[in-house]
Amino acid sequence: MELAKTIESVRLLVKAARSEGKKIGLVPTMGALHIAHISLIETAVKSCDFVVVSIFVNPTQFGPGEDFEKYPRPLEADLEICKKAGVDVVFTPATEQMYPQENLTWVNVEKLTEQLCGQSRPRHFRGVATVCAKLFNIVQPDITFFGQKDGQQAIVIKKMVADLNMPLKIVICPTVREPDGLAVSSRNQYLTKEQKKDATLLYKSLQKCQEMISDDIKDTRTIISEMRKVLEQVPSINIEYINIVDAETIQPIDRIAGKVLVAVAAKIGRARLIDNILVDAGKQ
Amino acid sequence: MELAKTIESVRLLVKAARSEGKKIGLVPTMGALHIAHISLIETAVKSCDFVVVSIFVNPTQFGPGEDFEKYPRPLEADLEICKKAGVDVVFTPATEQMYPQENLTWVNVEKLTEQLCGQSRPRHFRGVATVCAKLFNIVQPDITFFGQKDGQQAIVIKKMVADLNMPLKIVICPTVREPDGLAVSSRNQYLTKEQKKDATLLYKSLQKCQEMISDDIKDTRTIISEMRKVLEQVPSINIEYINIVDAETIQPIDRIAGKVLVAVAAKIGRARLIDNILVDAGKQ
Repeated sequence: MELAKTIESVRLLVKAARSEGKKIGLVPTMGALHIAHISLIETAVKSCDFVVVSIFVNPTQFGPGEDFEKYPRPLEADLEICKKAGVDVVFTPATEQMYPQENLTWVNVEKLTEQLCGQSRPRHFRGVATVCAKLFNIVQPDITFFGQKDGQQAIVIKKMVADLNMPLKIVICPTVREPDGLAVSSRNQYLTKEQKKDATLLYKSLQKCQEMISDDIKDTRTIISEMRKVLEQVPSINIEYINIVDAETIQPIDRIAGKVLVAVAAKIGRARLIDNILVDAGKQ
Repeated sequence: MELAKTIESVRLLVKAARSEGKKIGLVPTMGALHIAHISLIETAVKSCDFVVVSIFVNPTQFGPGEDFEKYPRPLEADLEICKKAGVDVVFTPATEQMYPQENLTWVNVEKLTEQLCGQSRPRHFRGVATVCAKLFNIVQPDITFFGQKDGQQAIVIKKMVADLNMPLKIVICPTVREPDGLAVSSRNQYLTKEQKKDATLLYKSLQKCQEMISDDIKDTRTIISEMRKVLEQVPSINIEYINIVDAETIQPIDRIAGKVLVAVAAKIGRARLIDNILVDAGKQ
């Protein structure tokens, strides 16, 4: 496994692999790798001949007062995980590599970024889309891999790739959960043992929604109200949003129909956690 | 010479050329080709092994009330010019090819797009940057060619390519002028014979500026005032702006120093014309 710290060096390594006719995979991450990242990497290793994992805590996707400084950066452990998983190159650029001068160019995906996390994190998706565009242009992968846990991000990146005709394929991998249902996240390590137990209610609220849709309940206000009751069982959960939106447009819907994204966000202790499920309710 | 109307077909043709190790050049145009485009194409043919010319009148860079509908589209003549110049592929996508669904993704280059043409055409450069990003992703050229006549556009595209790490090189070719100094433009055909004569004052005003800088005059207000007198010699010229800006930041400057862009825009009859010169005044 090679470690590339500069854009030039990762490009050279990819170029050599491509000249051998290898299919290039990219798994963009912010490091602090856990079993959900490993699942992405394993999928990449299975479907590509040459896998690059990027580890870059991207400052432009954090807002003021968010956890950019405190975000975990356990590089040695991350490299060990990548090595074991069969990664070919780990790309770990410094901030000065990625943003050597004042960045004036931003990729904005309108509408899809206004709801859900976009409401409390107004510039988050602008930063995500821009750094992904940069990483795609640096690595030039054939396929890139993202997790369903960041459901809105997945939809935004897919739209960016389609709208800008980026020459790559996007694969969205299922959310990886603890046995108790908690979605695996680097931010779970901010939780105490008690808070981690409380956090399982996020997925329980989503399961409640799934059940109600299965019971043919269509009114999203009724469903959201029941989901809220699940989350309000413990005082530690500070709900940011509970929403049911069209899975393509991310616009809130009144009645369940077609493919919907059910998404929740909450603060528990110092962690801001998100979770979601995709439900295909078919034609109504 | 091949004619490609779809993204898929141009990609296949480029892929075949690339597999033969050819260096790919792209000349993005809106058609209505003239000697300045031919100069770009000839430069591309000299420095690349395989040249794609795109002809696409991009709706997203025109504002309301601008000349999108009336913009000339002499496709047969354009193809003849490309053939004679040794172009390998002409890419002529329909609007539905380039924008098959509602476009939500925009590439914004901040600050550089606020002055000069950005003031009267607020969404113009957003449209230009976005369509160039799309064309770069579709054709994936090694080198792409633009004209200095659209001076602000050249600076914006160069910044976009740098900020987003796009894997290509940009070559800016000198402005091509008529013997009387008028910058060649597709929009010159909107002019009557008399207006075309009046339009030569645009370049004369720029030459006046050049002379004053050579005479060591530093105060930009003094220079702009003299340039205005040149343009006000005829009543047909409706000045939009006369400006002297830093050639990198496009911010207006009070005193001449370093590399400056001197730019003018004016309406003459139904044509909106622009022209500029780059002057390196050295360190002060």
